[in-house]
Amino acid sequence: MRYSNDRPPVITLTTGPVNAYPEVLTGLGRTVLYDYDPAFQLFYERLVEKAQKAMRLSTRPVLIQGEAVMALEAAAASLITPADTVLNLASGVYGKGFGHWAKRHSPNLLEIEVAYNEAIDPQAVADMLKAHPEISVVSVCHHDTPSGTVNPINEIGALAAAHGAYLIVDAVSSFGGMDTHPEDCNADIYVTGPNKCLGCPPGLTMVGVSARAWEKMKANAAAPRASVLSIVDWENAWSRDRPFPFTPSVAELNGFDVALDLYLGEGPENVWERHALTARATRAGIAAMGLDLWAAREAIASPTTTTVRTPDGIDEAKLRQAARERYGVVFSAGRGATLGKLTRIGHMGPTAQPIHAVAGLTALGGAVNALGHRVETGRGIDAAMAVIDAAA
Amino acid sequence: MRYSNDRPPVITLTTGPVNAYPEVLTGLGRTVLYDYDPAFQLFYERLVEKAQKAMRLSTRPVLIQGEAVMALEAAAASLITPADTVLNLASGVYGKGFGHWAKRHSPNLLEIEVAYNEAIDPQAVADMLKAHPEISVVSVCHHDTPSGTVNPINEIGALAAAHGAYLIVDAVSSFGGMDTHPEDCNADIYVTGPNKCLGCPPGLTMVGVSARAWEKMKANAAAPRASVLSIVDWENAWSRDRPFPFTPSVAELNGFDVALDLYLGEGPENVWERHALTARATRAGIAAMGLDLWAAREAIASPTTTTVRTPDGIDEAKLRQAARERYGVVFSAGRGATLGKLTRIGHMGPTAQPIHAVAGLTALGGAVNALGHRVETGRGIDAAMAVIDAAA
Amino acid sequence: MRYSNDRPPVITLTTGPVNAYPEVLTGLGRTVLYDYDPAFQLFYERLVEKAQKAMRLSTRPVLIQGEAVMALEAAAASLITPADTVLNLASGVYGKGFGHWAKRHSPNLLEIEVAYNEAIDPQAVADMLKAHPEISVVSVCHHDTPSGTVNPINEIGALAAAHGAYLIVDAVSSFGGMDTHPEDCNADIYVTGPNKCLGCPPGLTMVGVSARAWEKMKANAAAPRASVLSIVDWENAWSRDRPFPFTPSVAELNGFDVALDLYLGEGPENVWERHALTARATRAGIAAMGLDLWAAREAIASPTTTTVRTPDGIDEAKLRQAARERYGVVFSAGRGATLGKLTRIGHMGPTAQPIHAVAGLTALGGAVNALGHRVETGRGIDAAMAVIDAAA
Amino acid sequence: MRYSNDRPPVITLTTGPVNAYPEVLTGLGRTVLYDYDPAFQLFYERLVEKAQKAMRLSTRPVLIQGEAVMALEAAAASLITPADTVLNLASGVYGKGFGHWAKRHSPNLLEIEVAYNEAIDPQAVADMLKAHPEISVVSVCHHDTPSGTVNPINEIGALAAAHGAYLIVDAVSSFGGMDTHPEDCNADIYVTGPNKCLGCPPGLTMVGVSARAWEKMKANAAAPRASVLSIVDWENAWSRDRPFPFTPSVAELNGFDVALDLYLGEGPENVWERHALTARATRAGIAAMGLDLWAAREAIASPTTTTVRTPDGIDEAKLRQAARERYGVVFSAGRGATLGKLTRIGHMGPTAQPIHAVAGLTALGGAVNALGHRVETGRGIDAAMAVIDAAA
Repeated sequence: MRYSNDRPPVITLTTGPVNAYPEVLTGLGRTVLYDYDPAFQLFYERLVEKAQKAMRLSTRPVLIQGEAVMALEAAAASLITPADTVLNLASGVYGKGFGHWAKRHSPNLLEIEVAYNEAIDPQAVADMLKAHPEISVVSVCHHDTPSGTVNPINEIGALAAAHGAYLIVDAVSSFGGMDTHPEDCNADIYVTGPNKCLGCPPGLTMVGVSARAWEKMKANAAAPRASVLSIVDWENAWSRDRPFPFTPSVAELNGFDVALDLYLGEGPENVWERHALTARATRAGIAAMGLDLWAAREAIASPTTTTVRTPDGIDEAKLRQAARERYGVVFSAGRGATLGKLTRIGHMGPTAQPIHAVAGLTALGGAVNALGHRVETGRGIDAAMAVIDAAA
Repeated sequence: MRYSNDRPPVITLTTGPVNAYPEVLTGLGRTVLYDYDPAFQLFYERLVEKAQKAMRLSTRPVLIQGEAVMALEAAAASLITPADTVLNLASGVYGKGFGHWAKRHSPNLLEIEVAYNEAIDPQAVADMLKAHPEISVVSVCHHDTPSGTVNPINEIGALAAAHGAYLIVDAVSSFGGMDTHPEDCNADIYVTGPNKCLGCPPGLTMVGVSARAWEKMKANAAAPRASVLSIVDWENAWSRDRPFPFTPSVAELNGFDVALDLYLGEGPENVWERHALTARATRAGIAAMGLDLWAAREAIASPTTTTVRTPDGIDEAKLRQAARERYGVVFSAGRGATLGKLTRIGHMGPTAQPIHAVAGLTALGGAVNALGHRVETGRGIDAAMAVIDAAA
Repeated sequence: MRYSNDRPPVITLTTGPVNAYPEVLTGLGRTVLYDYDPAFQLFYERLVEKAQKAMRLSTRPVLIQGEAVMALEAAAASLITPADTVLNLASGVYGKGFGHWAKRHSPNLLEIEVAYNEAIDPQAVADMLKAHPEISVVSVCHHDTPSGTVNPINEIGALAAAHGAYLIVDAVSSFGGMDTHPEDCNADIYVTGPNKCLGCPPGLTMVGVSARAWEKMKANAAAPRASVLSIVDWENAWSRDRPFPFTPSVAELNGFDVALDLYLGEGPENVWERHALTARATRAGIAAMGLDLWAAREAIASPTTTTVRTPDGIDEAKLRQAARERYGVVFSAGRGATLGKLTRIGHMGPTAQPIHAVAGLTALGGAVNALGHRVETGRGIDAAMAVIDAAA
Repeated sequence: MRYSNDRPPVITLTTGPVNAYPEVLTGLGRTVLYDYDPAFQLFYERLVEKAQKAMRLSTRPVLIQGEAVMALEAAAASLITPADTVLNLASGVYGKGFGHWAKRHSPNLLEIEVAYNEAIDPQAVADMLKAHPEISVVSVCHHDTPSGTVNPINEIGALAAAHGAYLIVDAVSSFGGMDTHPEDCNADIYVTGPNKCLGCPPGLTMVGVSARAWEKMKANAAAPRASVLSIVDWENAWSRDRPFPFTPSVAELNGFDVALDLYLGEGPENVWERHALTARATRAGIAAMGLDLWAAREAIASPTTTTVRTPDGIDEAKLRQAARERYGVVFSAGRGATLGKLTRIGHMGPTAQPIHAVAGLTALGGAVNALGHRVETGRGIDAAMAVIDAAA
């Protein structure tokens, strides 16, 4: 049997959109309240506080009514001015991309770029900061999803803080799946979304904003206002007594509320552990099958995404198509510079379960074999199971 | 008994967010697919075509992944250049507001502004166009929700077309609730959302774009690109073979799909009829109760919103609070210039049912009475019923 | 406009099935667990304890996996033996009907039957018990839904207890909507369902069983065992360590869990109050409109159902059809002996809201008028509002 | 990490309750209509016709408002009289159990019983029918779930038909997962449920009834009437113009409606194929891992359940517990005579997907290993994949 492209697959092991937790899916269907209904305003205030708790913030986060790109674009537009010198750290497509947004708002852009299977070396950041005392903003993508690699944002953040620079962190696909929080890395703007490791659908973003970032943005006359790109407009929207700059996405917020309850209820440490274990088992399986990790080394491989280097002679699109049509398993492609060079297996939210590593490895092995390249799937499973069992 | 502000009310008769159809609420909970899954890409292509059918367009509409403000801001940014002279027609808060967005992109802004309980007179538009042959863009809000009044967009559109000007229409809260379509009014950009009369939650927008508007936007180097404010980037996103500029709001799209099926399945004409009848019954009831319509005359009163002038001596916020706490019925406040001056009763999607006119009138009458102003609620009901029965 | 019979109506104001609370509807969609999964067994144990709390029982209730008729038939079959003399109290179709089930298990059936718009007089029960010391079982329907009348079960129960007779109470459509609990009326078997005032769909029943009823049933060799009609088999099924006699209705249980949370969270007293107020307002409206209550007097009219005597010359089926096709409002018909003689307006669970009394009265008035009988709907609304406002 | 018994598992690979299709879960949450609402009556009539189509019946099936045991008990009570001689065919716990129900209604019970890992031999049936011309009813369980074995009901049915005996078939866990239909096996009563291979929650049953079975049941004065055990009462309930004997389970029916659409939409043959392939892959994996099938031979192994003989020295309950706590995978235990002797992996509805065979095998292998018995999981996966790939 073959799965038709016209019908949904069996398992979606992607890096986003990921399938949502069943509880979140039903949460989306709660009654839609008027945004100025006092019950909704109370709900919103409590929701922001719940998000604050999950983010371990000392200030209230901002909820942006759109996918993470909206908040990232808004962050650049709100915080960066022509007077700033921005050091953008690029270890992948997303990190690199942020430089383009930064450049729109300041001509002074410095960049450290490393190979897209590598991570940023804090020493390089330290050197650059020393060489360029004018650097006033540092931007970094924590988990560059198209590469499946993570940068040492806590170390980088400490350097930026010591330097006195503002730090913008894209933690969209890491927060909720590993131990990362805005204040741990001294982030001034920390963007993350519920649609990755928290298991929500795309359409909402949380932004942690430091006190001094609020000051800088509010002092920036060019920061978007009366715009969907505004962060400033939302400063007090958390309060039940203040208006919303525009109509919030009620259903997404309802789903997010459930996702936060699940995350806090399961225990963040437990959630991170199953993400890490799923990734570790997947990596062990890949190695045992004779395939290569894309990440230069295990230490920088993400716990929320495993990237597999496409074997020579294989068309990566065909590999994913084989996994889908034979087994009903969907993986993510690379993106931009990594497109065609790797396949991504997501471990995010509901799919961050070790048993799904097995399904992923099997479909991957089967697909590679189907394209004429020999790998030993069973060996991969045994290796993955050894990792899982060792943790039991 | 009194309804607590901390708990959801019984009926939400607002002008948005409105409660969604139950079928839409469950539709939001469909399995979240990867946006590049072929089944999702096929779904998206069919969804755009379904939206096209509902909008009676000859071209594919664009789906904007955010609330209508996003599309309106994007429309101004994409279509209007400093070389344009814009004629903005303002009969209410939203129409007036669009002028601010237009002004960001061209210094040449002309405006016809009428009292906010009035509608734009096509003759005034004709005169202005004649006096200003340089007018290249006309912008108008069809149903200015904060006023509950509708402008004659088909007549205005015909004038703009004859003049050769581009027409931007905000039909967010009229489309789906009455007989209005982009090509009926010669709109070049026609913005509407599923979260009003189609009974979806807020978070998505449809934009009808004429062929010549595509040309103008693409030729505009300043039109947003690589931005959530871009319309241009989405030109081909409808095609199952083309990438999305950024991750679409999968759950909102799933809900929208259900809403379109409901709309087309019930029959647009039938849907409009129940909106119109609900509004007519409500207006009859208001008059019979001795209250005043905000709209200067019935002919310009919206079929999707009824606005009631706040009786002298009454605090409008207290009026709404009384309706909520005594009867569990929620109305919308005015907005900006109309805040405090009127109360809005929405007839949108699931609440556009004549029997809800009765609930609305009763709660309104009861609230007014509770504040010490005498109205005869029963008389209002009898008048509303006479309208409903006459249509049966 | 007319509502088609082929499409769902707008408001269902029936006496069951009633529409479920939205939260219950989404609760039905929770992941289905294996009944022997430890998480499910724990859930079940806690659910039974939650039901026990709601029923204010000192013993664990039994959950019967079917609609209330299943439990009522099972109660007769389990408790009544040929050695028993049963006194069945019939003030309506359901009370009368129980006698037929009782008769299957004992030839010794005595009955007090009153007119179906009346209630049982405790004095008559006392007299009968005195005249027939052999009476060992008394059965009574608390709220005889086809009549909309309630019997004084606490008084009746006290008499039965003093006599030493077992008491079987059908409280299916009263529990959850008014102050009634098994131990308040000394019930030995107390049958009620979540599908009336608790706002669930039909398919599940709770049975309160006294310690001595357990003894009697277990001693009864003819009591159903290895049968869906068994109560005895379920005695220990509440325990996470004990097997289920057969597969329980997982989805219904999930919905019931939500319903109990809603009931306990809102506060039973508050829930009863809104049922009572809705009924009172409805009755005031009916009287003011010049229609007649079916119940012989207000004191015995149910707070969960209002029954309206069909005006002379009107075909009751046409009356309901008029309400449905003109206003989209659905009422319940009578049943058996009351069919055609009355119309029932339900106030149960989500519809037990005073504002729905208004919708019900309006649709009723409109329908009566449509059939050529004159009533003053507006007057009815004013009267209903006076009741509601007096309670505010 | 270990999965807590207090929280839901990751994957439920049981033989029922099985998890429902996501679409069914949301279908359960549709608005609850009044059972006598004309829209509901129309829905019900169409639903019965859809079930008829799925069952490939020439007559309308009966929907029983409870789990399958209700219909099986009802079938025995309705069809079997003391004048009947029943031949009950027992190849497992369920087949054997039906004999007890049969015995309640006729003292004349003959039985062919085979080992519970075997299937009934049609020749033995032929011999028995020849030896006992008085046999008037034959009863057989198609798929005896506690054994995971299937009986040749089409052959058995042909023999019964030739003999002139009525045939009662329990096809609860086979229909929808393989090519079996009432008329293919000449069944007079064919009981099946949507809660197995159709992917619904438990709580509803479909019964195919032949014309002559209707006659026999209606002629049977002892057949249940005015009882939840009645089949006769439901004869005409399918018709939109006829009353329901008692309130149907509206939510379950809504879910069932979705399940039928899924089944017919995917194509029954395709559905059966994925059940068969999943089972075949599972069996291949089990053999390759060095474990034993419970079924005496592949030919009688069910396509909807794979039963694995518990390895010597292993406590089967611990095996399932290990699979659950280590991998979050839940299997079914045996039942009655098979309890402790085997573990059941279900392939039903949403879990009948070959990739789930991999998850099942891996969890099984891991659990066996965790208990100190050596099996080679990877080898099992390779063998399963060889089967899956051969079918691709």
